[in-house]
Amino acid sequence: MHFTSTRRLDGGVLEREFTLGEIPGILWTPAPAAASPSTPAPLILLGHPPLGLRRMYPRLVDRARRSAADGFATATIELPGSGDRPRRPAIEQARADLRRAMEAGEPVGDEIVDALVLPLVDEAVPEWRAALDALLSLPEIGGPVGYSGGVVSIGIRLAVVEPRIVAAGLFAGSLVPRAMFEEARRVTVPLHVLLQWDDEGNDRQAALDLFDAFGSEEKSLHANMGGHTGVPQFEGDAVARFFTRHLK
Amino acid sequence: MHFTSTRRLDGGVLEREFTLGEIPGILWTPAPAAASPSTPAPLILLGHPPLGLRRMYPRLVDRARRSAADGFATATIELPGSGDRPRRPAIEQARADLRRAMEAGEPVGDEIVDALVLPLVDEAVPEWRAALDALLSLPEIGGPVGYSGGVVSIGIRLAVVEPRIVAAGLFAGSLVPRAMFEEARRVTVPLHVLLQWDDEGNDRQAALDLFDAFGSEEKSLHANMGGHTGVPQFEGDAVARFFTRHLK
Repeated sequence: MHFTSTRRLDGGVLEREFTLGEIPGILWTPAPAAASPSTPAPLILLGHPPLGLRRMYPRLVDRARRSAADGFATATIELPGSGDRPRRPAIEQARADLRRAMEAGEPVGDEIVDALVLPLVDEAVPEWRAALDALLSLPEIGGPVGYSGGVVSIGIRLAVVEPRIVAAGLFAGSLVPRAMFEEARRVTVPLHVLLQWDDEGNDRQAALDLFDAFGSEEKSLHANMGGHTGVPQFEGDAVARFFTRHLK
Repeated sequence: MHFTSTRRLDGGVLEREFTLGEIPGILWTPAPAAASPSTPAPLILLGHPPLGLRRMYPRLVDRARRSAADGFATATIELPGSGDRPRRPAIEQARADLRRAMEAGEPVGDEIVDALVLPLVDEAVPEWRAALDALLSLPEIGGPVGYSGGVVSIGIRLAVVEPRIVAAGLFAGSLVPRAMFEEARRVTVPLHVLLQWDDEGNDRQAALDLFDAFGSEEKSLHANMGGHTGVPQFEGDAVARFFTRHLK
C-alpha cells in the first residue's frame, strides 16, 4: 500500500489517496478531536456502484465525512474494470447487453445479470480483502470492520467470507444473481438494508426476497419512497447509528 | 375534561389521569427543563391495542417518558369496550370468534376481522378527536399532533379525517379490514411504519400491501426480525426521531 496524496479536508478529516498494486483507493481518517488519540479508529469499507471512483467521489466523501464525525475511518477502492483500471471485455459486453435490454424495455435475463455481476464479485472481493489487510496494518486503524454501500452482491460475498466484517449496510438494489440468494442465507452478521420502494431499475419483490433470505438474526429493512437515488437524508443518519451500535 | 390524579414521575414528567365524560385517559407532559417554558409542547397521541389501559400502562409510560425527553406531551385514552369501560357484546363476540379460529389454526375470515375492528374504529375515532379538542385547549399543549401506535386502523382513520394530525407512526399489524386499505390510499401525512417480519399473528404480505397502499409521499417502512412484541429498542429511537422531524 502506497500513499500518493494527502490532504486535510475542512473539518479536519485526513484524506489520503493510495494504490494497492494497480488498484487506486482512498482512505479517510477522522480529525484527532473526533477520534480518541490513543485508540485506533474502527473502519467502514465504502462500497459503490461500478461507475469509477472519480465520478463517485462527491457521494463517497460525503459518507466519509459523516462517518468521520462519528469516529470512523473509511476507505474505498476502485472496482475491477472501472475508472482508470483496464476494461474487462466480458463485463463490457454484459453492460452493453443490459443497456440494450433496458432501452428496448425487455426483461433483463438471468444470463445478463450473471455475466455482469458474478465476475465482478469474484475479482473484487479478494481485492477488498487485500485492501483490508493493508488498512488494518496501519496503526491509526483498528477493527471491527463494517461494509457499507453498493454492489450488494460484493457486500454479501464479503460478509460470508471475511470474518473481520462484523456488520453490513446494504442497498437491496438491482441485478442480484440468483446464486447470490443462496450466499445471502449464509450471511450471519447484523444487517441494515435500504430499499427504494419505487426504484425504477429494481425489482421490489426480488429485494424483499433477498431481505428474507439473509441468514442474519439481526436484520432491518428500511424502505422509503422514491427512485434509485432518492434515499432520504435521514436514512444516512440511520445507517450511521447502525454502525455506531455494532462497531463501537 | 376532568383531572382525577396528578403525580410527578422520576425525571420530572408530570402524569395526570383524566376523564373525558365516561372515558378514562392519561396525559404526560415533559419536565420544565426539557420543554421550552414559554412554548406549548407538541402532542403525540399514544395508540395501543384494546387490552385495557391498566395492562398497557408499563409500555405506555415508557413511550411517554421517551417522548417527554424529546419535549413532547403524550396522551392516551381507553378504547371502547376495554379496561373499565362497558363491554361491547358485538366486539366480544368477534373476539371469541377470533380466538376460536386462531386456536383451531383456521384462517381468520374477513367477516371476523370486520366485526372486530370496524365498530371499534367507528366508535374510537370520534373519542380521540374529542380528546384532542380537550387536550389542545390546555395552555401547556400545542399542535402539531402526531399519532403513534397500535390499532393501525384507528391510526389510518384518524390520519384521514383529523387535519390536526400531521404525522403518524403505525404498526403494520394484524387484522386490518379490507375497507381500511381503501382509506389508507387517502392518507397523505408522513408515515413511519413498523413491521415485525416474523410476526406469528400477522400476514406479512398484507402488511407490505398496506404500506404500498398508503397515499403519503413520505412513508418509511422499518422491518425487523422477530415476533409481535420483539420490536428492537433502537426502533423506539427511530420513531422518536421521526416525530422530532415532523412535529418540531
